[in-house]
Amino acid sequence: MTTHFIGVDIGGTNIVCGLLDERLNLLRKTKKPTGAANGADYVLNLIASMIDELLAREQLTRTDLGAVGMGNPGFIDPVRGISLSSANLKWENVPVSEKLGALLGGIPVFIDNDVRMYTYGEAAAGAGRGYDHVMGITLGTGIAAAMINNGQLYYGSGFLAGELGHVPLDGESALCGCGMRGCLETIASATGIARIAREKLERGESSILAEWFPGERRNEITAADISRAYDEGDALAKEVLQFVGRHLAKGLAWAITLWSPDVIVIGGGAANAGERLLAPMRETLMPLILPMYRNRIVIKLAEMNDDAGVVGSAAFAKTRVSA
Amino acid sequence: MTTHFIGVDIGGTNIVCGLLDERLNLLRKTKKPTGAANGADYVLNLIASMIDELLAREQLTRTDLGAVGMGNPGFIDPVRGISLSSANLKWENVPVSEKLGALLGGIPVFIDNDVRMYTYGEAAAGAGRGYDHVMGITLGTGIAAAMINNGQLYYGSGFLAGELGHVPLDGESALCGCGMRGCLETIASATGIARIAREKLERGESSILAEWFPGERRNEITAADISRAYDEGDALAKEVLQFVGRHLAKGLAWAITLWSPDVIVIGGGAANAGERLLAPMRETLMPLILPMYRNRIVIKLAEMNDDAGVVGSAAFAKTRVSA
Repeated sequence: MTTHFIGVDIGGTNIVCGLLDERLNLLRKTKKPTGAANGADYVLNLIASMIDELLAREQLTRTDLGAVGMGNPGFIDPVRGISLSSANLKWENVPVSEKLGALLGGIPVFIDNDVRMYTYGEAAAGAGRGYDHVMGITLGTGIAAAMINNGQLYYGSGFLAGELGHVPLDGESALCGCGMRGCLETIASATGIARIAREKLERGESSILAEWFPGERRNEITAADISRAYDEGDALAKEVLQFVGRHLAKGLAWAITLWSPDVIVIGGGAANAGERLLAPMRETLMPLILPMYRNRIVIKLAEMNDDAGVVGSAAFAKTRVSA
Repeated sequence: MTTHFIGVDIGGTNIVCGLLDERLNLLRKTKKPTGAANGADYVLNLIASMIDELLAREQLTRTDLGAVGMGNPGFIDPVRGISLSSANLKWENVPVSEKLGALLGGIPVFIDNDVRMYTYGEAAAGAGRGYDHVMGITLGTGIAAAMINNGQLYYGSGFLAGELGHVPLDGESALCGCGMRGCLETIASATGIARIAREKLERGESSILAEWFPGERRNEITAADISRAYDEGDALAKEVLQFVGRHLAKGLAWAITLWSPDVIVIGGGAANAGERLLAPMRETLMPLILPMYRNRIVIKLAEMNDDAGVVGSAAFAKTRVSA
């Protein structure tokens, strides 16, 4: 009998559950709408049923499971297994590990926040594999970061370290979801990129985006559309990604200097811009960091995308039960 | 027979050695000029003789020593016990632990950089005592920072984490010792504070400092003089410390957000400015950090000053031999 592991990636929209074998090969995945409006108990029951279904499909039972790992949006106490606060799920102090563990008949459940699980996955099996000091950053609806040293996640006081998206930048003033103004999240997130392009169009700057999204349709513009315009040689799109890259570099300069990662793995929707974003980012970054960092830092795009959270959660849980 | 420990704090100018008992009470200290120009072997022999002298004065011998700890300027490999590079001592790849250990007949010697040992001392027995997550920062000739989580120093790749003094700030351009321009070290260090005041005087701004230090004597101005002028109600001195506090806040906002300390302990010569500097710093800092940090962060002046490095080094060494 071999032990298997479950990784769960829960977001405001969808839940993805994955079943992995002992060597952390992803055998099977399933995805369902979160239905967060139905409350935490509904969601946790749904996850338990998704897990049972995955097991049944592979002709396994709960006794074949070593542990369950779960990446959650918001603030988590990974030691007590509690979701302290999640704006996306509308959860406050939900004892996730205890409740889901009970629903699964006592299987150990380990949780952490989503960017930590994502980074854990990329470090274990993706772009961070083989490095001792891995920083992960997701540029999605928001921005978050995590740091892993020799397999250990960095937490700090209250497990609150890594909110790279939430330091106001000089000269910037867009209102951030956190209530402050000019945070990196207002600029280098997928939503930030779209906002900046939209504001340029509103000021009457010319761009192929104005043809693609006439009038009110400009509100439909996404970060992906800006990459598409960039590839058409659009000057506005190029300016947007240069502006975003320069600001991302300012945050990364502090992260490199304080954390000293070997590698930075960049994921999330906005990372699909790839070198269109990373090239101007590097150009600004290098003069902002000491030569000793400049000479060693590797900056890569994430490799696992949708699977990083699931695999990372399972790998995290495996480490916990093996410890 | 009780075990004793030695802590050594070595700088470009002086060496301070301290003898501590098993409970890390500092029994006796001695201080000598480093004489770095004579080379590493001379300095290490000098330290060995200082240690023997301390032991003799307390009627102890080397067999009473459990370990020696040493805080060094520059870049250190604490695992191998090597001083990788020190501009102050003109050391390159000096195997300090091995050499000093041999001179002392095989007593284990543990080294790290000076700000880490300083922070370790303040965390063990000073302003950081009782906190799980302690950040230390020294505002001396230069600026450096260290982070301790549950007694463990944070290192990152190459042991290079924490160079808070070396990220260029927007709009600043003074040449830094590191070769970059506008680093926090050019502003919030003791030398930075004196420079900023001097430049204001050179531009003809009026200040009591111009009376105290007429003409070329203005080059003698130190950070302490600016505090003295501040206490006389001098507007220029107040502006300087406000300017410095505002910029220090920008660096600390990133450190708090990425590291999440419970407490920040501020030491070094420029910290003698106390609330003259910390009050404007706090005023700028609070709007730059998320409320969850704002509500929990404690910012304190260091308490042990000259002894932090010695006590920290001894405490660090004690932990290593006890591990």
